[in-house]
Amino acid sequence: MLNSPPDPVTLIATMGMRARAAAQTLAATPTATKAQALHAGARAIRASADAILAANADDVARAEDNGLTKAMVDRLTLNPSRLEGIATGLEAVAALPDPVGQVIDASVRPNGLKLARVRVPLGVVGIIFESRPNVTADAGALALMSGNAAILRGGSEATASNAAIHGALVEGLREAGLPEAAIQLVGTTDRAAVGEMLKAQGLIDIIVPRGGKSLVARVQEEARVPVLAHLDGLCHTYIDASADPEMAIKLAVNAKMRRTGICGATETLLIDRAYADPKAPIAALLDAGCELRGDADARALDARVAAANPDDWDTEYLDAICAVGIVDGVDGAMAHIARHSSHHTDAIVAEDAAIAERFLNGVDSAIVMWNASTQFADGGEFGLGAEIGISTGRLHARGPVALEGLTTYKWVVRGAGQARL
Amino acid sequence: MLNSPPDPVTLIATMGMRARAAAQTLAATPTATKAQALHAGARAIRASADAILAANADDVARAEDNGLTKAMVDRLTLNPSRLEGIATGLEAVAALPDPVGQVIDASVRPNGLKLARVRVPLGVVGIIFESRPNVTADAGALALMSGNAAILRGGSEATASNAAIHGALVEGLREAGLPEAAIQLVGTTDRAAVGEMLKAQGLIDIIVPRGGKSLVARVQEEARVPVLAHLDGLCHTYIDASADPEMAIKLAVNAKMRRTGICGATETLLIDRAYADPKAPIAALLDAGCELRGDADARALDARVAAANPDDWDTEYLDAICAVGIVDGVDGAMAHIARHSSHHTDAIVAEDAAIAERFLNGVDSAIVMWNASTQFADGGEFGLGAEIGISTGRLHARGPVALEGLTTYKWVVRGAGQARL
Repeated sequence: MLNSPPDPVTLIATMGMRARAAAQTLAATPTATKAQALHAGARAIRASADAILAANADDVARAEDNGLTKAMVDRLTLNPSRLEGIATGLEAVAALPDPVGQVIDASVRPNGLKLARVRVPLGVVGIIFESRPNVTADAGALALMSGNAAILRGGSEATASNAAIHGALVEGLREAGLPEAAIQLVGTTDRAAVGEMLKAQGLIDIIVPRGGKSLVARVQEEARVPVLAHLDGLCHTYIDASADPEMAIKLAVNAKMRRTGICGATETLLIDRAYADPKAPIAALLDAGCELRGDADARALDARVAAANPDDWDTEYLDAICAVGIVDGVDGAMAHIARHSSHHTDAIVAEDAAIAERFLNGVDSAIVMWNASTQFADGGEFGLGAEIGISTGRLHARGPVALEGLTTYKWVVRGAGQARL
Repeated sequence: MLNSPPDPVTLIATMGMRARAAAQTLAATPTATKAQALHAGARAIRASADAILAANADDVARAEDNGLTKAMVDRLTLNPSRLEGIATGLEAVAALPDPVGQVIDASVRPNGLKLARVRVPLGVVGIIFESRPNVTADAGALALMSGNAAILRGGSEATASNAAIHGALVEGLREAGLPEAAIQLVGTTDRAAVGEMLKAQGLIDIIVPRGGKSLVARVQEEARVPVLAHLDGLCHTYIDASADPEMAIKLAVNAKMRRTGICGATETLLIDRAYADPKAPIAALLDAGCELRGDADARALDARVAAANPDDWDTEYLDAICAVGIVDGVDGAMAHIARHSSHHTDAIVAEDAAIAERFLNGVDSAIVMWNASTQFADGGEFGLGAEIGISTGRLHARGPVALEGLTTYKWVVRGAGQARL
């Protein structure tokens, strides 16, 4: 272990205690003050744009020297327009409804006790992410607006960019009179700090990993703190016999090809054996530049479809590749999805409402869709304003998670001296 | 390892797969059918009362032979009236509102997509409990009514009682045409089965431990499946200077002494230094037979108060013993509670509404109360009909957990062919 200060154990313990203290303040901070901090942070980002872009240029140069892939360098790179997007993102979060203090439900008991469940912040949120520096701002803003303190740990390749953006956020906190420890950035880039965050029970209330599969898998394996995570977006689009043919083509192509690298992209197209024109969506995908890997029935429809091997049904391509299977109606589709879905997002294209409802009820995924593109699986598209992640777990929050998912509730009981019999 | 079948690994894997299949059926089972199974189960319990009581008598005789404490034997013992309570408990759960299918919220996006969050069962619930055989029925019923399959593992001392009660539940399932695997009982009594349940990721969705500290601590330490648990009920009652004197006495005595062995019992009484008559609640508790352990200021008020040592402020007595401290107003009380509370239930007695609201907002516990006895911390008292436990964790469900806490939700998106731009 290096003896240069601080060691990861001390670092995370210290940051955790500072975060816990800040969280107490934040839990009682009015909406307007939190919004003020975010607006001031946005101004600080704009005011220090040159410095942030220069820091980012250093990160990018280092990444290129280190031979990072083009895609990774692209995720890392900021430009004036992306930076303005980060600033307006802060302002957008500031405009979201504050969940803290919302009354979920209330009742009066026969003995006169008045009960209410009131939303309160989770406490301290740890966010572990990879190369995208905008996560520093996005995640910090969502945590702050929901009354939580944040401990952010970004990828080493974005060290300078993250520090520069974090500096602007802290300036915003200071202007609003909020504790600087409300949003902390783990400066050390060694992996031991991540390990300490994952073990920080009592200091960190929830860990949100944002990044590739290996990061998320490591977090889920090691964490003793609860994790809000999704591993895969293995999404399906099923074309039922009752589907409108034009809609089927449009949705199949959009669900797969609009952006192939996002978790809501369809990875497997299922077509009802009874569908009148199964060749059309297959041809449309191929013509759009998508490689198709199909079962024997799908291959019989178009010679350009390659043979799928068993792994293809469980592969999240995140690329212009799609598995195609012919199934026996909605039951066949649901059976396939039950076996292969990652329970992220699955869609049916159908005009028959009864069949669609059967699918919506029977498919056990965080998001189920009828006549819509799986690419809509996104907190922004769902009206949440932003998202800190999409949870494929079943506990606490499921699907896109934004402000509400970063809160819990307390039971508030108001009496008039009732003793229990 | 014994070579008598089955080994714990195979046992839990088999039960888990059967439970998963049953859960698929239960998720789509109408409310009336679930209620029918519980009513039939109640009838079966009454019809086989003699056999259940005989089985219980065997367990009790064995427990006495094995030298179990009187309290443990009492928890284990059934009689006709307790058994009737179990049967009516099943009927009460059958009458609760079914959370499955409830729409939490809904919206229409500007692009016309219709969104709804709909409650669905968690899936498979594992319940690990100790000597009380009624938990077999209570927990099985709550899991069933919320559309979940249950895997129950009771204490070895209640083996015969649990098997007999479980038999009646299965009869109810059968009568309603539901899969028998909807409620399974782990028959083996070795601890390895518990270990396998705790590791059964993908087969069991949530573990609920019901029992003493050592059980809950073991579960929280070993589990890789999410756990819904509370370790301690270290509850406080704070008497503010503004408290009504009669109410203060009544609530202090009730909160501590009504039943000392429940998790909602007050373990520490805090009294405002500015309170006019602090001797009165102290004397009332002493006169009610409560041993008091106080700080120097409390001891100065009544010679019968013993000296508290530092551990007393962190001890859940579950007995007629109470720590007593004199604090500086509501801020002093909140500081003490922040340091020592288990975040279960904490109460203020006050006539000053502003001070009370300050306490309700500032105390970070699952349940906060104003002018009410902490002994009300209970799912039944809160109108939930029953409870599977009280969660002091911050994620998923907090405080008393009943049917709703055993559900999650899915996002249902209904479109008209929208593709994402």
